[in-house]
Amino acid sequence: MTQKIALIGFGTVGQGLVEILQEKIDELDERYGYRWKITGVCDNRFGTVCHMDGLDPEVLLREAANGSLQTHRMAGDVKQFLDECNADVVVEMTYTNLSDGEPALSHCRYALEKGRHVVTSNKGPAALHFRSLSALAKKNRVRFLIEGTVMSGTPVLNLMDGPLQGCRVESVRGILNGTTNYILTCMEEGMAYADALAKAQELGYAEADPTGDVEGYDARAKVTILANVVMGADLPIEKVSCMGITAITPDDIAAARQKGKRWKLIGAVERNGGDVSASVKPEMVPLDHPLAGVSGATNALTVVTDLLGDVSIVGPGAGRMETGFSILTDLLTIHRSS
Amino acid sequence: MTQKIALIGFGTVGQGLVEILQEKIDELDERYGYRWKITGVCDNRFGTVCHMDGLDPEVLLREAANGSLQTHRMAGDVKQFLDECNADVVVEMTYTNLSDGEPALSHCRYALEKGRHVVTSNKGPAALHFRSLSALAKKNRVRFLIEGTVMSGTPVLNLMDGPLQGCRVESVRGILNGTTNYILTCMEEGMAYADALAKAQELGYAEADPTGDVEGYDARAKVTILANVVMGADLPIEKVSCMGITAITPDDIAAARQKGKRWKLIGAVERNGGDVSASVKPEMVPLDHPLAGVSGATNALTVVTDLLGDVSIVGPGAGRMETGFSILTDLLTIHRSS
Repeated sequence: MTQKIALIGFGTVGQGLVEILQEKIDELDERYGYRWKITGVCDNRFGTVCHMDGLDPEVLLREAANGSLQTHRMAGDVKQFLDECNADVVVEMTYTNLSDGEPALSHCRYALEKGRHVVTSNKGPAALHFRSLSALAKKNRVRFLIEGTVMSGTPVLNLMDGPLQGCRVESVRGILNGTTNYILTCMEEGMAYADALAKAQELGYAEADPTGDVEGYDARAKVTILANVVMGADLPIEKVSCMGITAITPDDIAAARQKGKRWKLIGAVERNGGDVSASVKPEMVPLDHPLAGVSGATNALTVVTDLLGDVSIVGPGAGRMETGFSILTDLLTIHRSS
Repeated sequence: MTQKIALIGFGTVGQGLVEILQEKIDELDERYGYRWKITGVCDNRFGTVCHMDGLDPEVLLREAANGSLQTHRMAGDVKQFLDECNADVVVEMTYTNLSDGEPALSHCRYALEKGRHVVTSNKGPAALHFRSLSALAKKNRVRFLIEGTVMSGTPVLNLMDGPLQGCRVESVRGILNGTTNYILTCMEEGMAYADALAKAQELGYAEADPTGDVEGYDARAKVTILANVVMGADLPIEKVSCMGITAITPDDIAAARQKGKRWKLIGAVERNGGDVSASVKPEMVPLDHPLAGVSGATNALTVVTDLLGDVSIVGPGAGRMETGFSILTDLLTIHRSS
């Protein structure tokens, strides 16, 4: 059966996803028997289009490049869009809002209530309302899948839910923000914080307002997701202590080096008896620790388990195709189980 | 439905598996709705026992510790055992034979022909006959699952089959044998090869006859499995070039250090156009490469993919509980899909 997909948000990640789907159209059919069509795209800059027979991916990409979706245009708000495009899966890819999760939160809720699967790489709903959204999904017998919210397409949540099933996770600890890791790597090489930040901005790793990354808020959202998804906690994001990297000086870098260590912004979740606690803060990691060797924009996570001890996964933490892949893998999971 | 399990081979791994199943009996039921019973155990030293209502795990472990399985003893060969114990899943855990895969190969074949799922951590059948065994499984609508054959319980095959689904794997490259990595780590610290080997033997990492590890044959079997399972090749093990670590001298170690490198026994599989080639050989790895930081008996694998670039996983490569877990995770996969 052809999977009908609706996209909310058609920026970098959404366009990357459509490129991947189109480029792999034969491979996905041959390897997984997976066929898809995009029945609707809704974007607050480009407009909304919808067609039950499926929209032409090439037309979508071309029209988006020109700034406006035209073919099979429809009027109405997101709810009307979701009603009309009648998709099996709704992919939420609007901007991240870590205050109240909106508008993504409402999009996810409405879709789940209507019995649609939801896949999202948007950290807002996942970090703030994972428990209620997954309960809503369960009630409506659909999935709420969020692999892309932590370390983009590098498998973390799906790794623990699938291949690590049967293990009990005692703690997780990792480098979850590529921008700050890139800045720290530059500082290791002798740059001052301001210069390293400027370089990260130049390369597109850091935004014009870098607060969300450098103050640790992005990592905090991911740590909250890990606590609630992987460790089964119900931890509000405000309970996760958070310190960024803005106070780290070249002297601190030198002092760490003298001790055979290296600064890393570490996100950690730990079980203490029945309780789960979580934090984000810069730590001096010994040079022979696996996390010390993770440089640049790469991310890494070490999971401490009862049966396997430490298992670490290292991979990209951001990127157009990488996040697009995270959506694809969740779409395939839905396909496989349907 | 309660999963009925038959065990062939009841050594370290088999006993470890039963301990895990017993210890996690409530956790597995609560988290996955997974219930099991062991309807038979067949071991060429301890004898064969079988009961349709399930054998008592504590009795099994106690009797094995005393050298002989007694309660519900039966006569007959492995085929009669498999017929009588009527299991849903047969777990093959006899000794590894990389020449012709026997007797494990015949056990797997017979079980699959009779429509039983097969789970094994035995490298023999997987390295020598993966394609025919998986075809046989498919024909009989059952699974042939082998996570434990590479890096014990650290997810490799299930990672690529599940969370990395949708990615095309271009190459894999890793440290797949813990014994040789432990010896090389000791040599880095100043020991001669013979002393390092003796220490590995003392700790139980290396066997009395260490040939299979130090000549690279164990890594070659794993590389063959990766080529055939992950890259879809049909590569016979003899086609995998293989060089071990026995020729590495303290001078070689020093020479690598001077170049900012470190010797590692690297197993690699690469796609060249339509062809897949594979090798095992010692390589000098730059110190800042993720594989250089993997020390002691730990294993690691870097997968190069089309959409995510490099993804690495690091974890244990052997061990009683670790390999026991690899069996458990495959049992859960069968449970989930049934």
